[in-house]
Amino acid sequence: MIFSRHLQSLIDALRALPGVGPRSAQRMAFHILERDREGGQDLVRALTAALDNVSQCGQCRMLSDEPLCGVCRSDRRDAGLICVVESPADVMAIEQATDYSGRYFVLMGHLSPLDGIGPEELGLELLEQRLASGEVRELILATNPTVEGEATASYLMDLARSCQVRASRIAHGVPIGGELEYVDGGTLSHAFQGRLEIK
Amino acid sequence: MIFSRHLQSLIDALRALPGVGPRSAQRMAFHILERDREGGQDLVRALTAALDNVSQCGQCRMLSDEPLCGVCRSDRRDAGLICVVESPADVMAIEQATDYSGRYFVLMGHLSPLDGIGPEELGLELLEQRLASGEVRELILATNPTVEGEATASYLMDLARSCQVRASRIAHGVPIGGELEYVDGGTLSHAFQGRLEIK
Repeated sequence: MIFSRHLQSLIDALRALPGVGPRSAQRMAFHILERDREGGQDLVRALTAALDNVSQCGQCRMLSDEPLCGVCRSDRRDAGLICVVESPADVMAIEQATDYSGRYFVLMGHLSPLDGIGPEELGLELLEQRLASGEVRELILATNPTVEGEATASYLMDLARSCQVRASRIAHGVPIGGELEYVDGGTLSHAFQGRLEIK
Repeated sequence: MIFSRHLQSLIDALRALPGVGPRSAQRMAFHILERDREGGQDLVRALTAALDNVSQCGQCRMLSDEPLCGVCRSDRRDAGLICVVESPADVMAIEQATDYSGRYFVLMGHLSPLDGIGPEELGLELLEQRLASGEVRELILATNPTVEGEATASYLMDLARSCQVRASRIAHGVPIGGELEYVDGGTLSHAFQGRLEIK
C-alpha cells in the first residue's frame, strides 16, 4: 500500500459496521478526511461516550445510560404488562408505532442451543423473578416470527404458565397495506388459521 | 426520548457518514453496543489516528501520513507525467486498475465558480509551479466527464499550454463489456466523435 497507513486502518475499521462494504468504507473515510473532519470528531466523541456509558438496564436488559432504563423507572408505565422482544431495535419500533404502556424485557437474541445460547444467556432468571413477584398480569410475546423466535416464545409461554401469568403472542397475518396476491404462503396460511370472528 | 441519550447521540453522529440513513445508523449503533464493542473501540482509535495524522501531500494534495505522499517520494515514478484527478478515490481506482507509473495531482473538487471554488481552492498554483519547472512532459487530464469536470479540464489545458507542456484527456466512450444498446446517447455520440483509425 503506497497510500496512507492511517487511511487504510480507518477504512478497515469502518468495514466492521454492518452493511458497509469496501467501497462504502472508502467513500466514508474520504468524506470524513476531505470534507467533514468536524463530523469525524463528533463521531469519535459520541462513540467514546456511548461505549463508556451505555450498558444494559438491570431490570429489562434494554440499552440504557442508567442502572435502570427510562421505561423501568417511569411510574406511568404499567408494571403488570411485560412485552418480551429480541432486540433493543424492537423496543424502539414498538415505542414509535404503538401506544403500548407496559414494560419490556429484551432478550438480546433468541434461544439457539446449537450456538450455545440457552435461557441463561438471555437473562431469563431475571424475567422469572419478575414473573414470580406476583406483580405481572400478562406476558406479551413479541419475538420474531422465525423458527428460533417461535421456539423462544414457546419456551417463555411455559415459563409464564409455571408462574401463573397469562401469556399472549402478538398477531401475525397479512400486513396492513399489503396486497393478498403478493403475501407469501406461510403468512397467508397463518392469517387464515388465526382468523377472528367479526362481532 | 425515553431511551439512552448517548445512544441517540451515537445514532446522530453515524448519520453524518455518506449513505447512512436513520435506519442504518440505528442498526450500526445497536450492532456496536450489543455485539461488537471491540470493533467500536477500533473505530475510535482508527478515526482519531486518521484525523490526527492524515493530511494532504505538499506536492500532489493526495491524502497522506507524511509531508510528501508515497507516490511523490518514490524514485520509480516518472516525474515527467502528471495525472490530474478530482479526488483521492480516483487515484486509488487508477492505481488498482492501470499500470500508470507517473505522478498525480489531486484537485479535491472541480472548478465551480457559483460555489466559490476557483483555481486557488484547487491549489492550482502548486500545479503551475510543477508545470513551470520544466520537468513535466505531459499533463494527463482525468477529471470526471461531467460539465464541471470538462470545464476544469479545459482550464487545465490552457494552463499546460501556457507552460509549454503537452496536455491529454483520457478517452471517453463505450465502456468495455457494455452493450451498445444500453449505452446512453451522450456516451455513444462521444464514442463516434472520438473514433480512432485502425492501423
